[in-house]
Parts: sequence; C-alpha cells; structure tokens
Amino acid sequence: MARKKGAVGAQTAENIRQAGIDLIYRHGYEAMSMRQLAGEVDLQPSSLYNHFPNKQALLFAIMRDYMTDLIERAEPELTGAGERPEDRLRAFVAFHVRHHMTRHRDIRIVNLELRSLAPEHRAAVVALRDAYERKLDDILVAGREAGVFNVPDVRVTAFAVIAMLTGIAAWWRPEGRLSVDELVSIHQTLVLNSLVAK
Amino acid sequence: MARKKGAVGAQTAENIRQAGIDLIYRHGYEAMSMRQLAGEVDLQPSSLYNHFPNKQALLFAIMRDYMTDLIERAEPELTGAGERPEDRLRAFVAFHVRHHMTRHRDIRIVNLELRSLAPEHRAAVVALRDAYERKLDDILVAGREAGVFNVPDVRVTAFAVIAMLTGIAAWWRPEGRLSVDELVSIHQTLVLNSLVAK
Repeated sequence: MARKKGAVGAQTAENIRQAGIDLIYRHGYEAMSMRQLAGEVDLQPSSLYNHFPNKQALLFAIMRDYMTDLIERAEPELTGAGERPEDRLRAFVAFHVRHHMTRHRDIRIVNLELRSLAPEHRAAVVALRDAYERKLDDILVAGREAGVFNVPDVRVTAFAVIAMLTGIAAWWRPEGRLSVDELVSIHQTLVLNSLVAK
Repeated sequence: MARKKGAVGAQTAENIRQAGIDLIYRHGYEAMSMRQLAGEVDLQPSSLYNHFPNKQALLFAIMRDYMTDLIERAEPELTGAGERPEDRLRAFVAFHVRHHMTRHRDIRIVNLELRSLAPEHRAAVVALRDAYERKLDDILVAGREAGVFNVPDVRVTAFAVIAMLTGIAAWWRPEGRLSVDELVSIHQTLVLNSLVAK
C-alpha cells in the first residue's frame, strides 16, 4: 500500500505500520485515528497519507502482509521436514506455535478486525487464510491416505488444530514458566497424539 | 447491574442487554454508543441509563453474566457424568462445544473486549474465567493421578483444549454440513485421543 519512495520512505512506511499495529492492538481499529497514528510516528497527517491513504488501507496492508508472510515462512519449514506426514505435522505445529508467540499482536488484529475490512479486502485476506489452512489440510489428507492418521473430518480437524495452536498467542509471555521449546513440544505431543492412528 | 423494577423492567433490561450484545458483536465496544443502543431498543437515552448507568456497566454485565452462566451450566453436566475422568472430560467437551455454538456472539465479546473493561471489572471477569478453567484442570489432574491421561502440563493443556473447543464459535453456523452431535463427537475424539494414556 505504501508508495515506492526508496529506503527512507520504506523505513517510514514500516514505522507507521508498526505504530499502527500497536494502536490497533491496544485500542481497536474503530477507536484509533489516523491523526493519533501521525502523532505516534511524529509525522503530519498529510505525510502519513502519502504512505497509507486511509485507515482502511493501513488495516488491509497489515492483515494481507501478515498472511503473506505466514505462508512464505511456512513453506521452507514444511519442505525441510521431508515427506512423512507425521514429520510434516510436527513441523507445522512447531512453526505455527513459534510464529504466533512472536506475532501475537498481529494475529489478534487478524482475528478481531476482519469485520472492519471492506468486503473486497476481507475476501482477499480470507483467501490467504484459506491458502495457509490448506497446507494443514494437505498434511492431514496425506496422513490419512498413508494410514498413519485417524482424521475424523479434515476441515473440522484443521480448524480445531489451528484454533488450539493460535490460542497460545492469547496468553504466552516471554518471561513465562516454560521455554519456547517446551511449549512447542507440548503442543506437538497433544496434536500428534490426537491424530496418530493406533 | 440493572435496577430491580419488576417483570417489565427486567424484560427491558434483557432487551437492552441483547441489543447491546448485538451492537458490540457487530461494531465493537469502542464504536458503539449508548445513544445508538437507545435507538435500537426504542428508548430515550435517559430511560436506558435507569438500567445501565453507562457503557462500561453494560459491558461488564454482559461478560460477568456470561461467565457466571457458563459456570452454573457446566456444573450439572460434570456431576451427571460421574467420577471417571474420561467421562468427565467427554462431558466437558460436549458442554463447551454446544454452549459456544449457541453463544458465539457472547464469547467473541468476552475474548475481544476484555481490554475495554475497567481494571476492577477485568479482574472480576478473569477470576470467573479462571474458575471455569479450573474445572478442566481438575479433570486433567484426576485423570493423570488415575493413570488414564498423559498430560504434558496441566495449565498449558487446559489452555490448548479450551482454545480448540472455543474455536468452533468462530466458524460454526446452524446451516453447516455437520450436525451438532457430529461436531461434538469429532471434538471428543480429538481431545480424548490427545490425552488418553497408551
């Protein structure tokens, strides 16, 4: 959404985006204003509009880039895990849990503010989310076909697993009792046990 | 929060509450106004204030009553399930899934608008939520002590299970492909398989 303006412009756009994420996370999209955002990044509102013409453009950019980034980062993790469905599922769980620990503000915005997107923007974000979820669907289908997973229903199971793993974004804090690796391992155990055929 | 005013007053308070849930669900707490709410229930703002002195009181009443109701309804379901941890866990899953299908607007408000509660109200709602989650903790601990559940970590597992089950509120629609009973059964299978000791 930001216009190409070289490195300085790109850095400014990124600063605006980060401040926007922070304001929307803390106060909600409806409650934040572009004027407030301009104040946070020390810009005149008119300069802000060079980067994001309005609040809707900012919200859409945050959500679209979040989902695109999620898909792009998942790909090498799954490729690196090899072909076995159990290994791919373990890799998916680890990736999703780790990602949502560090990006808990973004995912909260994606989950909470979808209602505030204009219909065409919402459709674009939902399509990206579907593309991401299909990666898990594919793992579940492959595991079922290979006879290693019991999957009661692929779509419902994928929703359930993603809801479980995303839930960590709501409560995880870096100073918590358990390490990131321990939390990844707990979630891998829960998900694998729930699906591995006995 | 509503003042005692007999049956008519109680009905009015309930109408306001339902209209408030609807407005907050659709537009968010920050975006809705008491004036808008008065219009929805065809009252003068001054009459509205007889029931809920301000927006904060309304939000707190919605969340507190939701959590109180959740706890009260869970109790007989768990008692009816008997003493075996597996049966109690199955009953907890069925109760939570069913409840969140019919109350998906309320749970969305509880999850999304906690940030908008005044600190003392937030503490009260969080205490109720903790009391509800402790019911699941207790089942997990009992199952672990009886040697029937493998629970990697009680608190994290309870969070994960509740996140998975609550997730259904985000996508379930009455006209969907699967019946309520089928969805309950799928979630019981996933949760029980993830925990039952092999």
